[in-house]
Amino acid sequence: MISFESDYICGAHPKVLEKLVETNMVPVSGYGSDPYCASAAEKIKAACGCPEAEVRFITGGTQTNQLIISTMLANYEGVVAAKTGHVSTHEGGAIEYTGHKVLELPEKDGKLQAETLNKYLKTYWSDGNHEHMVAPGMVYISFPTEYGTLYSKKELTDLYGICREYDIPLFIDGARLGYGLASSSCDVTIQELAKLCDVFYIGGTKVGALCGEAVVFTHNNVPKGFLTQTKQHGALLAKGRLIGVQFDALFTDDLYFEIGKYAIRLAEELKALFIEKGYKLMLDSPTNQQFPILENSKMEELKKEVAFSFWEAYDENHTVVRFATSWSTQEEEIQKLAQLL
Amino acid sequence: MISFESDYICGAHPKVLEKLVETNMVPVSGYGSDPYCASAAEKIKAACGCPEAEVRFITGGTQTNQLIISTMLANYEGVVAAKTGHVSTHEGGAIEYTGHKVLELPEKDGKLQAETLNKYLKTYWSDGNHEHMVAPGMVYISFPTEYGTLYSKKELTDLYGICREYDIPLFIDGARLGYGLASSSCDVTIQELAKLCDVFYIGGTKVGALCGEAVVFTHNNVPKGFLTQTKQHGALLAKGRLIGVQFDALFTDDLYFEIGKYAIRLAEELKALFIEKGYKLMLDSPTNQQFPILENSKMEELKKEVAFSFWEAYDENHTVVRFATSWSTQEEEIQKLAQLL
Amino acid sequence: MISFESDYICGAHPKVLEKLVETNMVPVSGYGSDPYCASAAEKIKAACGCPEAEVRFITGGTQTNQLIISTMLANYEGVVAAKTGHVSTHEGGAIEYTGHKVLELPEKDGKLQAETLNKYLKTYWSDGNHEHMVAPGMVYISFPTEYGTLYSKKELTDLYGICREYDIPLFIDGARLGYGLASSSCDVTIQELAKLCDVFYIGGTKVGALCGEAVVFTHNNVPKGFLTQTKQHGALLAKGRLIGVQFDALFTDDLYFEIGKYAIRLAEELKALFIEKGYKLMLDSPTNQQFPILENSKMEELKKEVAFSFWEAYDENHTVVRFATSWSTQEEEIQKLAQLL
Amino acid sequence: MISFESDYICGAHPKVLEKLVETNMVPVSGYGSDPYCASAAEKIKAACGCPEAEVRFITGGTQTNQLIISTMLANYEGVVAAKTGHVSTHEGGAIEYTGHKVLELPEKDGKLQAETLNKYLKTYWSDGNHEHMVAPGMVYISFPTEYGTLYSKKELTDLYGICREYDIPLFIDGARLGYGLASSSCDVTIQELAKLCDVFYIGGTKVGALCGEAVVFTHNNVPKGFLTQTKQHGALLAKGRLIGVQFDALFTDDLYFEIGKYAIRLAEELKALFIEKGYKLMLDSPTNQQFPILENSKMEELKKEVAFSFWEAYDENHTVVRFATSWSTQEEEIQKLAQLL
Repeated sequence: MISFESDYICGAHPKVLEKLVETNMVPVSGYGSDPYCASAAEKIKAACGCPEAEVRFITGGTQTNQLIISTMLANYEGVVAAKTGHVSTHEGGAIEYTGHKVLELPEKDGKLQAETLNKYLKTYWSDGNHEHMVAPGMVYISFPTEYGTLYSKKELTDLYGICREYDIPLFIDGARLGYGLASSSCDVTIQELAKLCDVFYIGGTKVGALCGEAVVFTHNNVPKGFLTQTKQHGALLAKGRLIGVQFDALFTDDLYFEIGKYAIRLAEELKALFIEKGYKLMLDSPTNQQFPILENSKMEELKKEVAFSFWEAYDENHTVVRFATSWSTQEEEIQKLAQLL
Repeated sequence: MISFESDYICGAHPKVLEKLVETNMVPVSGYGSDPYCASAAEKIKAACGCPEAEVRFITGGTQTNQLIISTMLANYEGVVAAKTGHVSTHEGGAIEYTGHKVLELPEKDGKLQAETLNKYLKTYWSDGNHEHMVAPGMVYISFPTEYGTLYSKKELTDLYGICREYDIPLFIDGARLGYGLASSSCDVTIQELAKLCDVFYIGGTKVGALCGEAVVFTHNNVPKGFLTQTKQHGALLAKGRLIGVQFDALFTDDLYFEIGKYAIRLAEELKALFIEKGYKLMLDSPTNQQFPILENSKMEELKKEVAFSFWEAYDENHTVVRFATSWSTQEEEIQKLAQLL
Repeated sequence: MISFESDYICGAHPKVLEKLVETNMVPVSGYGSDPYCASAAEKIKAACGCPEAEVRFITGGTQTNQLIISTMLANYEGVVAAKTGHVSTHEGGAIEYTGHKVLELPEKDGKLQAETLNKYLKTYWSDGNHEHMVAPGMVYISFPTEYGTLYSKKELTDLYGICREYDIPLFIDGARLGYGLASSSCDVTIQELAKLCDVFYIGGTKVGALCGEAVVFTHNNVPKGFLTQTKQHGALLAKGRLIGVQFDALFTDDLYFEIGKYAIRLAEELKALFIEKGYKLMLDSPTNQQFPILENSKMEELKKEVAFSFWEAYDENHTVVRFATSWSTQEEEIQKLAQLL
Repeated sequence: MISFESDYICGAHPKVLEKLVETNMVPVSGYGSDPYCASAAEKIKAACGCPEAEVRFITGGTQTNQLIISTMLANYEGVVAAKTGHVSTHEGGAIEYTGHKVLELPEKDGKLQAETLNKYLKTYWSDGNHEHMVAPGMVYISFPTEYGTLYSKKELTDLYGICREYDIPLFIDGARLGYGLASSSCDVTIQELAKLCDVFYIGGTKVGALCGEAVVFTHNNVPKGFLTQTKQHGALLAKGRLIGVQFDALFTDDLYFEIGKYAIRLAEELKALFIEKGYKLMLDSPTNQQFPILENSKMEELKKEVAFSFWEAYDENHTVVRFATSWSTQEEEIQKLAQLL
């Protein structure tokens, strides 16, 4: 059985695991105050080219989104997001659980358009009843998006410009950031991205770690009482080292970026393979998630030998499915799949 | 430098780590649906002697307390706990964050007394204004308590009897359960404990795991929509295997219980050492946390060579400190300490 | 100056006020336990033809929506509503504040279509990832809607049928119920409406009271701990009599229904007037709110002599505005307006 | 039947009701933007001698406490209150519902002692683990307290001094403020009180209004987005005039203060009566609530002719009960009671 089910099917990248083993018996203090977290934070700041940033480590993606959004919004504010955004649909209402509305806007291929955002903000502020409505207090986008698509540098610049104009922070969910940055379609570097938002996170869980996301507050803008708020959310890890050690490994010798490149190369092979074999793709994804449309009978047949994910029904006889590559995907798996298709 | 700072200063017990390494490249599905979680759950149910139980894995202690309490209470109910309970004091308001009051009662050496509980419940229900007050909907105790003390089987039986009488669940926080069960003062087995409550958790973070707690719903009483609620709390790990694998190792060949015994043996040595050297202890703790009272000048001197925790000021010239043992404590560290005292 | 600004511009209907004056010095117990609340509840149950109902009195509309929705949903559930529903847009995020998502669906003239609801529920339950999503736990509609439109008996029957099929309650917001029931386009009686939902409220604030809404749980289905939850929301009035007395008056001699008829007659005159004078209406509202489209210059001119509300921009030169009638609207105001148009 | 059951047994003071009747048909805008609210606010600012204050009107006491506390605290902060404070015990967990802990401290006769507060704050800030604990972000006291007692000017000055030192606001719950200020034991004026806190409210519900409390932010410190937050809490009254008109009447010709004096005079008669007849009082209350200790048999006998409230059991044969006077108490009721005792 080969698996393209998701980008979190295996444990940790061997170099990450090695570092965990190597540091296992070194006693350190808890709650993120250890030297591994400190070292990882320094490396991340260097990689992002923003010495004035502050870095915090959180266990998982939904938890990170919930924590960042709820600690940066005022009580009466909501977060603006694409209708297809992870926070809008697939987090079990984690944002609303903290008392804040997700203000959902239409999108295109998973991307929030600058024009859509601008029009919404303008309409809100010119509405005579706006004080009876949830105030837009932050913008959330994901990079890559839930559909594997990427914002161009121009698109990010436009979105951030609007956020600056309306004085609300832009938050980039980078659960799969490594796979986005490594795409040949990506025209933005991590340093540039860090300058085009107020806070973003570098996903570890899907890019080589057992767990963990690194939040980068780009300009010394950690919310007040952040450690207490992390605890209050049940998100403060006693052994903070667990994430610190892993990110320290991921940001040594560009491992994080190498993982990205590796998975993207395999994703491109995958994509070429589907096209070559005559399959249609739901959209043209430039990153590690590919969305071929399979005939239902073919899908059932394939399932016996390959793990992949259901995405959505296409029509009565076809289904959109998702194939994901990651650091753990093997070249041979692609070859095996080629034979099966 | 030797360290008794806490029971979470090192990584994972070598056998746990080994299992993580060994299973690292096996692809599995996410969110706790993998075979490691299933296997660990079966082993835990067997160890607890309750086949009708259901087991869920959560990343950390505060998160577990928050999730269990908020999913088991009705909106208008609060959780009853000792004033010194972890949920009352040291979780940054994580329970209140979910909208529920912690109904704090007086305690003795960290333990909630049956009589105190009974009187409180009786007074509440006979108060003509009780509908204007938060209803007691659950009782929380920790085993061992935050002071390292243990409830006897009789005390647990009495508390649970009261809970049954008032038809509210009893929840036991077992963050350090392994160290409690291994104490020579403990007169209850894990099987008995499982029968004397509605839900409890077996702490992993402090007893050999990198992270993770195993929640045992003792009689098929998982709250409705629990997976969604876990997600909603940001507490659903994508790589659920991370905790499953670890608990699978901890519940193989009685490792969890062996770890407990090992740390308790060293804690007893530690205790004997303090007494022998003429130190007073804040209270007589039968578990892995010891609370000697140090003269401040001695404390400062010791700090240079030994890591331990501040607990509370005793008087102007003395301080209560905490020394903890765990699976990672070395015999030599005790010997070294003996020389220093 | 004449005013059509809203249906809550004046105090209370004279008969309501009279009853307040008349009962003013009678001492009664607090928190809704008084004989006026009891009498009003009986009269409402009789008027609704549902003896098995339970009635509770709440101060305002948003408060009522918040309380009903949050006490009837499970933690992990959200409420389904039209995108234009009051709870979706104009309550400052009051629903999300309680931790629940408003699951917004497309609408037609402010009405949620049965087909739309059915498709949404079917898709949700057939989605393999639905446990990662907020579960639809209730349906909210308003009668009349925010656009003044009405559901037909068939539409209500269809919606309620779907709710029954998926076993979720249907909640009808009747902030302007009196004006809906009195419309010549309304083909449902209050008795029928009570049978086509699980809970609804009879709006007082906009239909002759100083404040107050009467919630009708149609089949003995008051949420557990409701009084405590009302207190917990800050929604329990010490002088519960204030609302009880008013609803007692409103449900004496059909006053509530007479108020509705009166306002609807004037609204029809208003509508005829706009049409006669050549104004276009945004939509064909059969109730007490009318939405003419005014040229901006005309609008500015009118404003000097008539109070009305901004609704939304129509195009660069035109604006949709709202004119509302109520029990307090005077025949002469319509005549005065006729001269001005 | 005569009644001393509470201070909210009747409707509104005749002059308040008169003003409601008089203004009933004047059309005004909603949500507190009307001229009555504006006028009442001006009169209150003048009476308090603080022109830089801002005044907002809220419907009830618990709602006011919930709104003020949750809008003034940061996410990770709690409110410090006496264990017997209304927010601690009798609001159904309304504060916790907003996600904030009530940090309960010991009290004396219902009053929070400056020394107790100071010690608590000092201990909190010097605790090495304070970041794991809820931060004290506000102090709540009530004037008069739930036991009818009063803080002296010195006590208020001391408490406020500590709040200033720790830079946290002091909030005074004045649900019965009028009865406190009118007491012969009160050594503080409303102007002085306004200078000794950051926010307080002037209770209307218990002092002559049908409903309503006037919140005074003493130095232009209304929380950001307050109107939206009021809406979000379901606390924004459509007919804001209802409260505005009433406070306008209460602050015309010193009516609010006259009501206080009247009720206090009768309370003193009541107190003298109990003492004269040989009853013991639970404590020496200088305000409108008196707490005699009755023999149970006497209590049962009295109940047939007089309404009063159960307070708490005293011993097996005695009960503490509460008798309250208010603007609506009649001189004859005291005389009738004298005969019965």
